[in-house]
Amino acid sequence: MTSTQSERGGAIAAAVEAFVRAEVAPYEFDPRCGSHGPSGDLVTELREKAREAGLMTPHILDNGEHLSHCDTALVLRAAGLSPLGPVAVNVMAPDEGNMFLLGKTASDEQKRRFLAPIISGEARSAFFMTEPAAGGGAGSDPSLLKTTAIRDGNHWILNGRKAFITGAQGAQVGIIMARTEEGASLFLANLPDPAIRTERVLDTIDSSMPGGHAIVAIENLRLAADQMLGAPGEGFRLAQIRLAPARLTHCMRWLGACTRAHEIAVDYACRRKAFGKAIVDHEGVGFMLADNLIDLKQCELMIDWCASVLDAGEPGTVESSMTKVAVSEALMRVADRCVQVMGGTGVSGDTIVEQVFREVRAFRIYDGPSEVHRWSLAKKVKRDWVSSHSAPEENAP
Amino acid sequence: MTSTQSERGGAIAAAVEAFVRAEVAPYEFDPRCGSHGPSGDLVTELREKAREAGLMTPHILDNGEHLSHCDTALVLRAAGLSPLGPVAVNVMAPDEGNMFLLGKTASDEQKRRFLAPIISGEARSAFFMTEPAAGGGAGSDPSLLKTTAIRDGNHWILNGRKAFITGAQGAQVGIIMARTEEGASLFLANLPDPAIRTERVLDTIDSSMPGGHAIVAIENLRLAADQMLGAPGEGFRLAQIRLAPARLTHCMRWLGACTRAHEIAVDYACRRKAFGKAIVDHEGVGFMLADNLIDLKQCELMIDWCASVLDAGEPGTVESSMTKVAVSEALMRVADRCVQVMGGTGVSGDTIVEQVFREVRAFRIYDGPSEVHRWSLAKKVKRDWVSSHSAPEENAP
Amino acid sequence: MTSTQSERGGAIAAAVEAFVRAEVAPYEFDPRCGSHGPSGDLVTELREKAREAGLMTPHILDNGEHLSHCDTALVLRAAGLSPLGPVAVNVMAPDEGNMFLLGKTASDEQKRRFLAPIISGEARSAFFMTEPAAGGGAGSDPSLLKTTAIRDGNHWILNGRKAFITGAQGAQVGIIMARTEEGASLFLANLPDPAIRTERVLDTIDSSMPGGHAIVAIENLRLAADQMLGAPGEGFRLAQIRLAPARLTHCMRWLGACTRAHEIAVDYACRRKAFGKAIVDHEGVGFMLADNLIDLKQCELMIDWCASVLDAGEPGTVESSMTKVAVSEALMRVADRCVQVMGGTGVSGDTIVEQVFREVRAFRIYDGPSEVHRWSLAKKVKRDWVSSHSAPEENAP
Amino acid sequence: MTSTQSERGGAIAAAVEAFVRAEVAPYEFDPRCGSHGPSGDLVTELREKAREAGLMTPHILDNGEHLSHCDTALVLRAAGLSPLGPVAVNVMAPDEGNMFLLGKTASDEQKRRFLAPIISGEARSAFFMTEPAAGGGAGSDPSLLKTTAIRDGNHWILNGRKAFITGAQGAQVGIIMARTEEGASLFLANLPDPAIRTERVLDTIDSSMPGGHAIVAIENLRLAADQMLGAPGEGFRLAQIRLAPARLTHCMRWLGACTRAHEIAVDYACRRKAFGKAIVDHEGVGFMLADNLIDLKQCELMIDWCASVLDAGEPGTVESSMTKVAVSEALMRVADRCVQVMGGTGVSGDTIVEQVFREVRAFRIYDGPSEVHRWSLAKKVKRDWVSSHSAPEENAP
Repeated sequence: MTSTQSERGGAIAAAVEAFVRAEVAPYEFDPRCGSHGPSGDLVTELREKAREAGLMTPHILDNGEHLSHCDTALVLRAAGLSPLGPVAVNVMAPDEGNMFLLGKTASDEQKRRFLAPIISGEARSAFFMTEPAAGGGAGSDPSLLKTTAIRDGNHWILNGRKAFITGAQGAQVGIIMARTEEGASLFLANLPDPAIRTERVLDTIDSSMPGGHAIVAIENLRLAADQMLGAPGEGFRLAQIRLAPARLTHCMRWLGACTRAHEIAVDYACRRKAFGKAIVDHEGVGFMLADNLIDLKQCELMIDWCASVLDAGEPGTVESSMTKVAVSEALMRVADRCVQVMGGTGVSGDTIVEQVFREVRAFRIYDGPSEVHRWSLAKKVKRDWVSSHSAPEENAP
Repeated sequence: MTSTQSERGGAIAAAVEAFVRAEVAPYEFDPRCGSHGPSGDLVTELREKAREAGLMTPHILDNGEHLSHCDTALVLRAAGLSPLGPVAVNVMAPDEGNMFLLGKTASDEQKRRFLAPIISGEARSAFFMTEPAAGGGAGSDPSLLKTTAIRDGNHWILNGRKAFITGAQGAQVGIIMARTEEGASLFLANLPDPAIRTERVLDTIDSSMPGGHAIVAIENLRLAADQMLGAPGEGFRLAQIRLAPARLTHCMRWLGACTRAHEIAVDYACRRKAFGKAIVDHEGVGFMLADNLIDLKQCELMIDWCASVLDAGEPGTVESSMTKVAVSEALMRVADRCVQVMGGTGVSGDTIVEQVFREVRAFRIYDGPSEVHRWSLAKKVKRDWVSSHSAPEENAP
Repeated sequence: MTSTQSERGGAIAAAVEAFVRAEVAPYEFDPRCGSHGPSGDLVTELREKAREAGLMTPHILDNGEHLSHCDTALVLRAAGLSPLGPVAVNVMAPDEGNMFLLGKTASDEQKRRFLAPIISGEARSAFFMTEPAAGGGAGSDPSLLKTTAIRDGNHWILNGRKAFITGAQGAQVGIIMARTEEGASLFLANLPDPAIRTERVLDTIDSSMPGGHAIVAIENLRLAADQMLGAPGEGFRLAQIRLAPARLTHCMRWLGACTRAHEIAVDYACRRKAFGKAIVDHEGVGFMLADNLIDLKQCELMIDWCASVLDAGEPGTVESSMTKVAVSEALMRVADRCVQVMGGTGVSGDTIVEQVFREVRAFRIYDGPSEVHRWSLAKKVKRDWVSSHSAPEENAP
Repeated sequence: MTSTQSERGGAIAAAVEAFVRAEVAPYEFDPRCGSHGPSGDLVTELREKAREAGLMTPHILDNGEHLSHCDTALVLRAAGLSPLGPVAVNVMAPDEGNMFLLGKTASDEQKRRFLAPIISGEARSAFFMTEPAAGGGAGSDPSLLKTTAIRDGNHWILNGRKAFITGAQGAQVGIIMARTEEGASLFLANLPDPAIRTERVLDTIDSSMPGGHAIVAIENLRLAADQMLGAPGEGFRLAQIRLAPARLTHCMRWLGACTRAHEIAVDYACRRKAFGKAIVDHEGVGFMLADNLIDLKQCELMIDWCASVLDAGEPGTVESSMTKVAVSEALMRVADRCVQVMGGTGVSGDTIVEQVFREVRAFRIYDGPSEVHRWSLAKKVKRDWVSSHSAPEENAP
């Protein structure tokens, strides 16, 4: 716990950690964990346990207040110790980000109707933003928004296609971005709705998110005017509210998962012998675990730093880009080393290490690949230079 | 084609490439491609086509002669262009290595009985060497051999457990290592045999090998004396014959697969637009593809070099270790970049890129993780130094 | 400034930064900056300016109290913005570490005689610990101590050889480790002394430390009993006091230097054009600068974390090993990218970037190469595992 | 020796290697090796020895014929075993490339006057192409040519500035690129000439090239018409002839240097003990040496491949870009590991390892930084894709 983290946050995190290790981890090899995430049935069972333990949605207090980002870091890392942990205690993506967005921007009525059931863990939600590109595939370039929302009296009629929509399959709440005359706008929908048709759920390298990632067609979806979030044209501005925090909670959860993978690899390396000694005593193995220690610590520090920036009320766009790149790439190294240390066992499903490796590979793409973040960081480097040199010429070095 | 590669090799490779691209690749998304490899049914169908095309087991001539290792490199790279290619034309692991071993060491009768059906593509085979370690998992340390073969008149009775036995499930021929009084020995068995029980087939990150990777129990397996390969105690010496070439053919096949993944990524990058231009025109993407070019070329050169060492009759132990490390790690970088270039599509099963990434991750472990090879290379560095300094003291620098 | 850093620390750091940028940086290309560091003459001139600015030894208050490690981080990073900065304001290695050690362990009389002139910036000091190995070269293994100290009435007679003694040439105070009957012990000496003969000053890749790195012979050095630091046999224990903090202040200073190198590279990249645009607008360049941003931030966070551990009174051995590895390797990447961004200018002495690159390469070796730290971290990983499994067997996973 | 290398080449290389190890290496610590390369005096002394050994300019036969590029690879690697070797036997940059260019393009009279003294080792030469950019520094973008050549009767008058001109100081022959009405053109000049003024010799991180790297001003340099190489406007076309081969011979020489650095590091690691055993027996060290083995072999293979492309008469632009990137980056890793293995000794001038590290860092910039090569490789990737898709639309996948 750093000086920016509270005792309350620490206590909740400790409870979540104990719960995830004792109650959630045993389900990791449950056959209901499919390639498109845990089944609805399994989710219900896990949440029942979380509710009993008083740990449902632990980062949102009963009065609707969220823990600080710094405290959330503690709680979500604890939840992430199992790939099933975030689902079990209802802090997974995209729900966590959706709850954050709705908490900040929804009307009271919208909160009652759309937010409350997510917080209670009865509903799952999806965020319909990314669209299939002409060339196929999901995209990082938001200017490509083609889904339209046409006003029809006191309603809107939405049409378009969305790609890579995490959790759409099986969700009860949808937040949908569409283009109105005023620009991009956000809408709330109850799901399922016959006007939102799952074309297919993608088979992806990751498998922790319930509902997987779907391509959906929106065909004449009719939504009442009060189902718009904020005002027409505010879509991108509102989506930004969700952006940096949601990017950061991904980092928190996967840090938890990699911490656990590291524990498993250490345990393996200390028990398994080769060429006459425990493999941890081979520097080739021991050094990998040493590097894991360092990488895991650096991830924690980056996350806590970015969280403290958000807690200070800054938008954190730059900081969360830096953190996303650093953490996702460091965790890939950690997961890869865990696999490598464990040899044949590491590439098998006998432990969660293999799954964590796959999840982190996907994480390096989700919420923007490193290249998009580096691109925007390079722009910032230039922008800062330009602004520091916009003064009279004689200031130039 | 380098100066060490023949026109015949080139012609066979060209035919295999055309066949794999036209006839095999379309099966890549066949539902019979399961997590434990293509089903027996699918294998049969693919081999039917290979037979029609005159391309079954193309690296072994009708007279039983094998192509040179350098020519084999051409052919196996071509076969590897699809994850299904090696199975289709019968050059996959472990059969390719098993055919090589039997061709070099089996008696005529053994060849007729065990080798011929593998070459004809009617039978698949497995190599039962690795054993589960006390701590669980597969191992790189061959001294751990615990399976025993006890003489019983004109027979041997084998007992033990084997782990990570690729293709065991569904194989018709088994080569089994067991410890006799004289030391490690190799045996040939017809499969299935009730005395060889599949405890379970592992779920692994890779999914191209038919039969997957199994843990098997050998319980009182009774084999006639003439089912021993070579003489008692020759097990490790014979296994060595297979070792370097089999390590190298892995490199060949996966080079093919990554070449294809690179083609797919290039195609994607040239078609897909982001931020106003084709993504290949973003240096962040273009540089990744440039690095792929370099890595793929270096893999090719290492493979050809190691093949030429083997063709010169050298054991190639050191060279194949160097090649295994260099190629497996370079191909991981290539596969990872292909995924990254393709973003969401790269982590989905919409192309084979995602599978190739998983396969290559496993390849970094199979046939010895990099660390074991580096360890033996370090020993060689020292050995060479010692032998160059064993002369009188005044020679020391 | 983080929550663990004080306004006082921030104010001192700001003053040091302004001084280093305005007053010290102009000396960077002074011809008195030689390959063995700035000449004594130049050091005197720089310190005169620091004294005038009220910034001599800014991390030690007038009452002898040291700033917290967290505040020291701010000040030393500021000083490090020029390779001459730490010398100018008297926070360089090894003096800074020596002042720390003497402040914690010297008697009042020893402080008056040996510490006071270092703090005032009149004297430089050296730490005589490392010894030449049989095979030549400096070493990370302290068990190799061969220098002896033999009691002779109320004196000690020291004999031995020391290698890689930074700043020995030109120092006025020496702290010398030697083996007495009771074990390793530390002694204080006034320098120069004819019994301590500089065999040679090494030509090294770095060039910022006044006096360079020397090999010295100690021949019948006679020291009074009250020149022993602490008690006989306490040498290693006392040296440990200096170890982690001194390791960390290296990180602080070089972070400053690399921050400045990054500024220079950014400036270059924003001004210089190639192929029709500023090179910062080429992703190949912009991405390198983006990665610098991330690496520099991670270094800062690791340093602040480790400093807060030390401020909490912990020994910080593990944490400073982690920080040394992470920071030295990250700063090497940063310095290398700065060189690369600047092309021909980057490998020339036209800016300090080339020097910073060389200094950081040496830093990766000084205070223990990464491999020694990884080795001790791997031992910690195992130690922690063992201690968590020493409980009854049923606790094992 | 590969199948593309001749016995003659092998024999010459063996003689060069023996000469460099026995006769040249002892001069490595001669005080005449300055920061701007060996002095003219030392060069003369070394060449005297080479002449006596019959090894002056060993890659050019008495009849003026050059060895094949593949054979040249053997010879230049041997010469590069010492940083002084290439100078001693007259195969260093830029002379080697200049001899190649003049051999291909000079008139008989020009050969007699300008080429012969270079081949005989009496003259050194320089290639005046790169110009200082507006923003300062040397450049990879040849479109920036500003030096002019104005016709004046039967003469040309040249004016301009050139930057980073290797070996200009002390050279007797200059090849100068300047812009005529017809475009870029090449001129031959006898040096020194008062119209070519060395503004300054840069202090650079490398120190092997005699004359260092200079910035020169050309002020009304008057050259006779017959001192133009080729025809007006052919400058870039002719420079291209030199480009790929010269890029490749850099790789050859530095491969030799890194091979030697590796030998030194191996010797150190096998002799030096730490923590109870030779450091080579620590995996952390042994693995670095294993990786060196692999990297050195890959460099050799890339060089031989590119050489065989050039020997086949191809321009080799793409291949030499690939090779330059791969080899320069691999050799940097090798040199860095050698430094690291040797600890304090590695960063000192006690062996050539420290120098080789510095030289290779500069090599990563010289002849185009990796980023420029990756940029052109990415263009090639796209170009190839476009050309394979320019056929009728139905061919698209």
